[in-house]
Amino acid sequence: MTFTSTSTARTVKAVLFDVFGTVVDWRTGIAAAVRRFAGEHGLELDADAFADAWRARYGPGMRRVSTGERPFVLLDVLHRENLDGVLEDLGLDPGRFGPAALADLNRAWHFLPPWPDSVPGITALKRDYIVGPLSNGNTSLLLDMAKAGGLPWDLILGSDVSRAYKPTMEAYLRPAAMLGLEPGEIMLAAAHEADLAAACEAGLATAFISRPLERGPGISGAGVAARSWDLSVSSITELADLM
Amino acid sequence: MTFTSTSTARTVKAVLFDVFGTVVDWRTGIAAAVRRFAGEHGLELDADAFADAWRARYGPGMRRVSTGERPFVLLDVLHRENLDGVLEDLGLDPGRFGPAALADLNRAWHFLPPWPDSVPGITALKRDYIVGPLSNGNTSLLLDMAKAGGLPWDLILGSDVSRAYKPTMEAYLRPAAMLGLEPGEIMLAAAHEADLAAACEAGLATAFISRPLERGPGISGAGVAARSWDLSVSSITELADLM
Repeated sequence: MTFTSTSTARTVKAVLFDVFGTVVDWRTGIAAAVRRFAGEHGLELDADAFADAWRARYGPGMRRVSTGERPFVLLDVLHRENLDGVLEDLGLDPGRFGPAALADLNRAWHFLPPWPDSVPGITALKRDYIVGPLSNGNTSLLLDMAKAGGLPWDLILGSDVSRAYKPTMEAYLRPAAMLGLEPGEIMLAAAHEADLAAACEAGLATAFISRPLERGPGISGAGVAARSWDLSVSSITELADLM
Repeated sequence: MTFTSTSTARTVKAVLFDVFGTVVDWRTGIAAAVRRFAGEHGLELDADAFADAWRARYGPGMRRVSTGERPFVLLDVLHRENLDGVLEDLGLDPGRFGPAALADLNRAWHFLPPWPDSVPGITALKRDYIVGPLSNGNTSLLLDMAKAGGLPWDLILGSDVSRAYKPTMEAYLRPAAMLGLEPGEIMLAAAHEADLAAACEAGLATAFISRPLERGPGISGAGVAARSWDLSVSSITELADLM
């Protein structure tokens, strides 16, 4: 099977995926890890709200790298710094927990559960396309996640390869160059329209994957695309069927 | 299963492989491509000798990068330059062939056949270890080879990630850092002792894979290790059995 993008007029050879929210359910995974951590330390807290607060610091943390305010650091480092911030906002001194306990909690981002359609969808696409993540996660994070969740990537090039975070253009163009492909021969599949818009600007084909539960149930308008993309689907298996 | 290296006293978490000669049979693959090329262009030549001559330029080409004589360029570029050299040595002007025909012949390095034990051996090791190439090949070369040959790597970090060629220390240490592992948690499996010696110097565990036919039949002493390594085996399936 081959798929030719109407926007780029090129045959797609690789389907690369945003990961957090698109391939894996970060909120469920992080809330579960926070719940365990809270139990071990006798804390009373809302694990879902903790996960949301941790994730809310994700964009701003990367932005400081993308604007040049600070040099590139691994997403693992940003996650760890952001964890301190979330604890402090809850009036909890990070120093009261051992560094190993915080490092362990931070590693929950390496072991997030795939959505039910992710492994079968990526497996199906792998027959005819190169498949891999195009994520802000670092290589070791994405590798741990793939091994634990059975994500059958052909290759993993984390953000530490391009040393750039999406939506910087370099974050899309450098992986394309390393695959030996034109940007238009790559499709980004993502649940987030800002990511897709930047990929489109970089010349990639685009697929919107609706993930209405990414930020939890009952969020009005969640999972609805505001504009049209090359493809718009509600699962990765549906994407594989269409391509 | 876990394997602890006696030289590094660490439990191995990743087995990374030299590729040309260790995982794939470059001589058979290149000679076949040269034979097709010769047929298409009405050339009389010894395809095996051509393959050997092409490979003989491999080390010297990379050495000019490693010594700083020239900036890093992809192995694809070195292979292409070396092809011109081989043709010229045979009294053939590269200009008489179209650039597309030479580019096509050069891409034979992307599609080399795995040795019969490579896919089953790597598949078996993948259950308990991270598996990947640690090759001088660039990422797109290794990706094409993996897709065509069914090599089930967990990840592919080509030499264009570290922008360093083995046996430079950086070529071993940068992949280790990107995997989030100590050098001693990685084993290099290779058919070439110079590669293993450099990996050992970088702190990696080592496995010698005997490939007596790498340079063709009837070569005295081929496939025999001159010194001892953490493991010494005659196939990747045997390596998997031992680990």
